[in-house]
Amino acid sequence: MRVLIAGVDGYLGWPLAQHLADQGHTVFGIDGLMRRKWVTEMESVSAIPVASMSGRLEACRTRHGKSLGFSEGDLRDPNVAREAVKHAKPDVVVQLGECPSAPYSMIDAEHTVFVQTNNIVGTFNLMFAMKELAPDAALLKLGTMGEYGTPDIDIPEGSFEVEFRGRKATLPFPRSPGSWYHLSKAHGSSNVRFACSLWGLRATDVMQGVVYGVTTDTTGEDPQLLTRLDFDSAFGTAINRFCCQAVIGHPLTLYGGGNQKRGFLPLQDSLRCLTLAIEQPPKAGEYRVLNQFAEVYRIRELAALVAKVATRLGMDATVNGYVNPRVEEEDHYYNPDHQRLQDMGYVPTVDPEAEIERTLLELRKHGDVIHQHSNVLVPDIQWRGDRKRAYTVKKGIDL
Amino acid sequence: MRVLIAGVDGYLGWPLAQHLADQGHTVFGIDGLMRRKWVTEMESVSAIPVASMSGRLEACRTRHGKSLGFSEGDLRDPNVAREAVKHAKPDVVVQLGECPSAPYSMIDAEHTVFVQTNNIVGTFNLMFAMKELAPDAALLKLGTMGEYGTPDIDIPEGSFEVEFRGRKATLPFPRSPGSWYHLSKAHGSSNVRFACSLWGLRATDVMQGVVYGVTTDTTGEDPQLLTRLDFDSAFGTAINRFCCQAVIGHPLTLYGGGNQKRGFLPLQDSLRCLTLAIEQPPKAGEYRVLNQFAEVYRIRELAALVAKVATRLGMDATVNGYVNPRVEEEDHYYNPDHQRLQDMGYVPTVDPEAEIERTLLELRKHGDVIHQHSNVLVPDIQWRGDRKRAYTVKKGIDL
Repeated sequence: MRVLIAGVDGYLGWPLAQHLADQGHTVFGIDGLMRRKWVTEMESVSAIPVASMSGRLEACRTRHGKSLGFSEGDLRDPNVAREAVKHAKPDVVVQLGECPSAPYSMIDAEHTVFVQTNNIVGTFNLMFAMKELAPDAALLKLGTMGEYGTPDIDIPEGSFEVEFRGRKATLPFPRSPGSWYHLSKAHGSSNVRFACSLWGLRATDVMQGVVYGVTTDTTGEDPQLLTRLDFDSAFGTAINRFCCQAVIGHPLTLYGGGNQKRGFLPLQDSLRCLTLAIEQPPKAGEYRVLNQFAEVYRIRELAALVAKVATRLGMDATVNGYVNPRVEEEDHYYNPDHQRLQDMGYVPTVDPEAEIERTLLELRKHGDVIHQHSNVLVPDIQWRGDRKRAYTVKKGIDL
Repeated sequence: MRVLIAGVDGYLGWPLAQHLADQGHTVFGIDGLMRRKWVTEMESVSAIPVASMSGRLEACRTRHGKSLGFSEGDLRDPNVAREAVKHAKPDVVVQLGECPSAPYSMIDAEHTVFVQTNNIVGTFNLMFAMKELAPDAALLKLGTMGEYGTPDIDIPEGSFEVEFRGRKATLPFPRSPGSWYHLSKAHGSSNVRFACSLWGLRATDVMQGVVYGVTTDTTGEDPQLLTRLDFDSAFGTAINRFCCQAVIGHPLTLYGGGNQKRGFLPLQDSLRCLTLAIEQPPKAGEYRVLNQFAEVYRIRELAALVAKVATRLGMDATVNGYVNPRVEEEDHYYNPDHQRLQDMGYVPTVDPEAEIERTLLELRKHGDVIHQHSNVLVPDIQWRGDRKRAYTVKKGIDL
């Protein structure tokens, strides 16, 4: 298949491009390279060094024996989206090109407006380009489990049958996102759903859990083939940040009580799931929601697991409790469905320990980089109020 | 109370400003005068002549003996919103300043992106300005009943208790909007709801039905005090368009079968409802949804009513059926709640006939204007496909 990946320079985009190429697909990428700038703005870098885009492309050409199509551009410009679709003639367009950070969207008004307009407009421009130039192509859009929030009932995959005052209807499951970023994803989901009913767009909307880890098909080969891994509190995700902290002996930063439950999956699982969704596209007009995660864990369970594995590897791993910079439920019911991808062939990784070990071993090579930027390990973006580093409330928590 | 009205130059904004001034409130207005440009872009004008903003303000000053505070500016500029809030020191900010047209949002990609970003960013800038400069002020945001779509169950006011797999939760009622414009309103509703939980913003989100008519407190006085009334197929609403059509003997344009049901209310009812919501603000942190309409009618019932009243007034009123330019259910269940405003003191107008008669009599003075722009009476914006005038399928329908 011909696959156009928007956001090909990102944590998921770069390894997905290679995974798909390995599977024999023809891959085109587009990226505005904004992730690099955002992380720089957070005064951080990727723990795993990121080659220049030309270096990445060259390494890819060497490995696969053929070029990865790439164009640099900002999807907020409709012509950038049109040219990319025109050139790639895609069977599937994978939209990984939105700004993926909740904290980044909570910095101030300017960042809020940027994240929502960037994400909405970029996806619109891709959808309209597809409508005009590739009307039979499928859209695979990356959403987040965070669109649902943490309701006190089970979370179905996208929609549910509801009975109200004696009548029944199948309706979209209500979204209760917890940040301006998560809201941008919910807005995008609603927009994509409407395009399906309006134009007959075929779309998969992936409600993805928190991705962690470094392992991809090309781990251990040319380092330019590796993906990035962020550890700043805006662009780094929970387990990845814990691993980076453990590597340099910084206390793991547990927000609040740590009883928050989320769905998680290793990077390799994400690549496999996205590939299944690409290779089994929805029907014309179908809006398909896939809840994409391996298992649900409490954050404190994962902190404990990272600490355990790190200790085994001889690292000095402690856990500190911090005043939660976010506004979120800390003790809550959480039972989301995630059957559809399994029905499509996904076998979830239910033991995260091995991937955490691989991640710690890989990151240990880059301890210096993390050390040099260790000030970004404690969050400073507060959901309510001004920007300041969250202060410790409990040192050396015994999990 | 001190009230800042964003969108004060519009169909609702201008009469609301005067209605509030009549009630003794201190009113400030802000507007980018974009509605005038949008209607010009539709190659149309208001049937009722609209004075320049300076003429309007002068007439207002003459009538009320004091100036209406006004500044011209585009709310997409955060400084415009900040300056307005800073100057007005409002107790209530009324957001009527979004682009209000479903067809306009369906023209093409450019218009879709404009409507969504304009509406989202304008409201963000108002909310962030309030957070900074008027944190105790209440926001009154104009949404639309169209956010809900036409689900096969009753529509509550904003949220509902749902039972799912044996557990219960109170959740936002799922939105199923039917245009990019209606989606922008649903996105805005989600954003406002989150700001309430996050900052303690107090907000009323009005899910308004279709407003019609011309009668306001100042009807019959200085014509510069009158509101605008649009009849083009993008910015004119159903009953108002039927009245303009009847006035010049143009067939009333029934879309599809005409069995679509919607909530309607006369302009005066809208002013009264908004005033009630202004004078009875929500508590800090409260996100209050009010479904605002007088009664539910089928579109064909209203076409029949306009035709009946017009015939009585000696006009030549026939009804033609047109291929529906929209994508919408034409035969559907529709039973939305609308109790809350009545509990707050609203007495709905349940007989639209008198207001339709007043509207026809007022519009008869402006038949020439409508005649000169009669090409805009038939819709040309198609929800699916290219822009073309909807063609008649049945002439002279007997309702």
